[in-house]
Amino acid sequence: MFAPRPLALSILGRCPWRCCRRKHSAAAVPLSVREALVAKVDEGAKDVKIQGWVRSVRSQKEVLFLHVNDGSSLESLQIVAEPGLKNSAVSFGSSVEVCGVLVKSPGKKQSAELKAKEIRVIGDCDSQDFPFKIKERHPPEYVRQHPHLRCRTNTFASLLRVRSAATLAIQQFFQSNGYVHIHTPIITSNDCEGAGELFQVEAANRDQKGDGGFFGVPAFLTVSGQLHLEIMSGGFQKAFTFGPTFRAENSQGRRHLAEFYMVEAEISFTESLEDIMQVMENLFKDTTAAILSKCPEDMNFFFKYVSTGQQGSLEKMIKNNFIVMSYTEALEILTRATTSFQHKTEWGCDLQKEHEKYLVKHCGNIPVFVTDYPYDLKPFYARDNEDGPQRTVAAVDLLVPGIGELFGGSLREERLHFLQSRLDRLGLSDTYQWYLDLRRFGSVPHGGFGMGFERYLQCVVGVDNIKDTIPFPRFPYSCLL
Amino acid sequence: MFAPRPLALSILGRCPWRCCRRKHSAAAVPLSVREALVAKVDEGAKDVKIQGWVRSVRSQKEVLFLHVNDGSSLESLQIVAEPGLKNSAVSFGSSVEVCGVLVKSPGKKQSAELKAKEIRVIGDCDSQDFPFKIKERHPPEYVRQHPHLRCRTNTFASLLRVRSAATLAIQQFFQSNGYVHIHTPIITSNDCEGAGELFQVEAANRDQKGDGGFFGVPAFLTVSGQLHLEIMSGGFQKAFTFGPTFRAENSQGRRHLAEFYMVEAEISFTESLEDIMQVMENLFKDTTAAILSKCPEDMNFFFKYVSTGQQGSLEKMIKNNFIVMSYTEALEILTRATTSFQHKTEWGCDLQKEHEKYLVKHCGNIPVFVTDYPYDLKPFYARDNEDGPQRTVAAVDLLVPGIGELFGGSLREERLHFLQSRLDRLGLSDTYQWYLDLRRFGSVPHGGFGMGFERYLQCVVGVDNIKDTIPFPRFPYSCLL
Repeated sequence: MFAPRPLALSILGRCPWRCCRRKHSAAAVPLSVREALVAKVDEGAKDVKIQGWVRSVRSQKEVLFLHVNDGSSLESLQIVAEPGLKNSAVSFGSSVEVCGVLVKSPGKKQSAELKAKEIRVIGDCDSQDFPFKIKERHPPEYVRQHPHLRCRTNTFASLLRVRSAATLAIQQFFQSNGYVHIHTPIITSNDCEGAGELFQVEAANRDQKGDGGFFGVPAFLTVSGQLHLEIMSGGFQKAFTFGPTFRAENSQGRRHLAEFYMVEAEISFTESLEDIMQVMENLFKDTTAAILSKCPEDMNFFFKYVSTGQQGSLEKMIKNNFIVMSYTEALEILTRATTSFQHKTEWGCDLQKEHEKYLVKHCGNIPVFVTDYPYDLKPFYARDNEDGPQRTVAAVDLLVPGIGELFGGSLREERLHFLQSRLDRLGLSDTYQWYLDLRRFGSVPHGGFGMGFERYLQCVVGVDNIKDTIPFPRFPYSCLL
Repeated sequence: MFAPRPLALSILGRCPWRCCRRKHSAAAVPLSVREALVAKVDEGAKDVKIQGWVRSVRSQKEVLFLHVNDGSSLESLQIVAEPGLKNSAVSFGSSVEVCGVLVKSPGKKQSAELKAKEIRVIGDCDSQDFPFKIKERHPPEYVRQHPHLRCRTNTFASLLRVRSAATLAIQQFFQSNGYVHIHTPIITSNDCEGAGELFQVEAANRDQKGDGGFFGVPAFLTVSGQLHLEIMSGGFQKAFTFGPTFRAENSQGRRHLAEFYMVEAEISFTESLEDIMQVMENLFKDTTAAILSKCPEDMNFFFKYVSTGQQGSLEKMIKNNFIVMSYTEALEILTRATTSFQHKTEWGCDLQKEHEKYLVKHCGNIPVFVTDYPYDLKPFYARDNEDGPQRTVAAVDLLVPGIGELFGGSLREERLHFLQSRLDRLGLSDTYQWYLDLRRFGSVPHGGFGMGFERYLQCVVGVDNIKDTIPFPRFPYSCLL
């Protein structure tokens, strides 16, 4: 693999970033802010070049202080300069290149600071027109109205770094555990799961449409990669996908997006829901541990400024074994509750948000697996437990504090005759001949799960609105840029 | 991070996979085929359990040979059993669980084999109905007609393992080099690049459509994440995206898909096209090196059976520095050529497939960067070189053997007045106010590139048709499953 950028400040001539063929002046080595902040300055002063955006300007009689950020870390680099280097264009939001000497900072807040020899403004920024103001904390609703500038705020830049680290951590979790990554299709002719909340896709230009449309059949955006991933369960013992999914749901809520990301996995040769639950728990804990270790500053920023109490809540989730209870047990708990619920709590009813909240609280705010749901509540592919005539299926949801349902999973019905008769009753046998084929040719017991990635981020950083966990949120009446 | 599965065969009781909470019988530790193939059998016989699909059955008087594959590797595990363990359902394509003792193989082909004590058929497979036949090599066109069973063939399973390894390698390349991963949007209201080959998206169900559609504006599937990634160039020095993109192009060719994956990167504070080219070259070489090291068997399979000569060709690409020539130099080469081309070769014309092929061959089949294209050939965002009135732009394409254009990149026009006047002339200024804003508020010189992921896979494994590089190919009149 490509080695991480070396921090060697002493390489002469050749760019130490290894990112370019240019010979930078040996006197001024370009460094990212993150690199500058951790550079060893004890060994003597270093001539470096920093490029970034001005986050603060403080002009005193004798000295000029700047803070410059380039997105490589939450923290900015402090620049110390003679007032003579000040230029009226050096303002909040402008981009600058600063050459100077990296020295040990006398201040306690940072270990290194840059004594500037030269400050060059690359792109100015009219503070009147710029929608974000220096040292102001703008509410998320306001920031969202400027999607093309949103990454210039601390909170959203931190979110994006955490999201990026989580994306890599999820890939590494699965691949290091022997899972094959599959790009399940985005456009699909499979319109089912009975969802109804589908987006349809067609060529915009008439010239591209033939008879019956571009694809010759109605085509939709995927609502889940599961069925396509199950195909892979016939050849790979472990497979996963991590990509966008879509719901044309008329909801403006804090928990819903029209375009969101799902992490889905399928495991073959598994007859136990516990196998699936263990992978879910490991995925949650290992990904969270990776984020905490990779982005400690960003996470602390969320804990301190965005969601107080979140740190303790998250530590509790990580330290404890998740709780397991059956749907039937959950219903008993709800029935015994002194709280009065808006929705009924009879065996057979779906769990509502209020029920989920109660159950999580009842479990001391530790995530709780609810298993073995009524047959009629779950889709056709869930495996019949045979504990009565079509009574329960081997399905599981993971409920977490603040969010409710974060994962959903099940064993899949691998027995041809069970699946065939259920599809017959639903009138779906013709549509799903290919799915039945998977049970005709070397069928294996298997199961899997899906996790909503944005809900996961909400759960981890404690952001209230799911729209603040994704770079470009899409929801009814909104598709900015 | 979650540790890779330990290979410890001796752990008693607790599942050594760490994938489940179950207590497997200490006498039969479940192993993947890959694990079994590399297990140290010198230390004595081990009781293990293998689960997978039968790839071959050979019944002799004294002994029964099976080969079982579970997708964890190209190679299958050889099972040796007494003929009495044979069951008529043990056939090609059926799924089995074999318990037995892992021993050193007397054969030369494999180091370990399994002496079976018990063979249990999990799911049978009617060889009459199963579309793939034992020991037959089916042409890719035939295999493609069975998208739900395609992963059960050696060639496609190898492709999927290589694709999975490449996906991780690309994430790791960028993240270890300080890039932030961004999920650029799939659904966008940005209908431009003048492409015209767009897919439009709308809620399928009328109830979800309000006035003006679900989003209140026409919405399309993205053709590139570049413009959205450029937004991130205003906050992060380095950003990348890797996701699906779409073209409603009426092409059934070997090089085009309606749904394909793009790897795109943007780098800020860069004034040199060479910076961008170096990242392109590093990405190609490091990803390829990662695949070769992670999937040596699968790659050798392609080299041996799918594309002869590919190994040498690929090694040549990796060992040599890529060649750089300007568009003007390329045109001189084409004009001097003794070959007669179908398309004209005058300065200002676009390079056609035949030209690209000739140039790569002329360069000894080493990938070649063609730089500084005529102004009118490239989109509005390409940076004017100012070598004449709107003469050339700082754009680059990378041409590779067998494929032609694999990467496209450019410096982006960061100067407000240049961009504004170009957009004015195109009548696009109103649409792109947000894009102009990026140049108003702390603009920085920046550039980036995009690589077609499926074309990259074609280039590396030597597969002829792009449809054989993606799990579920979408193209005109075809959207299977």
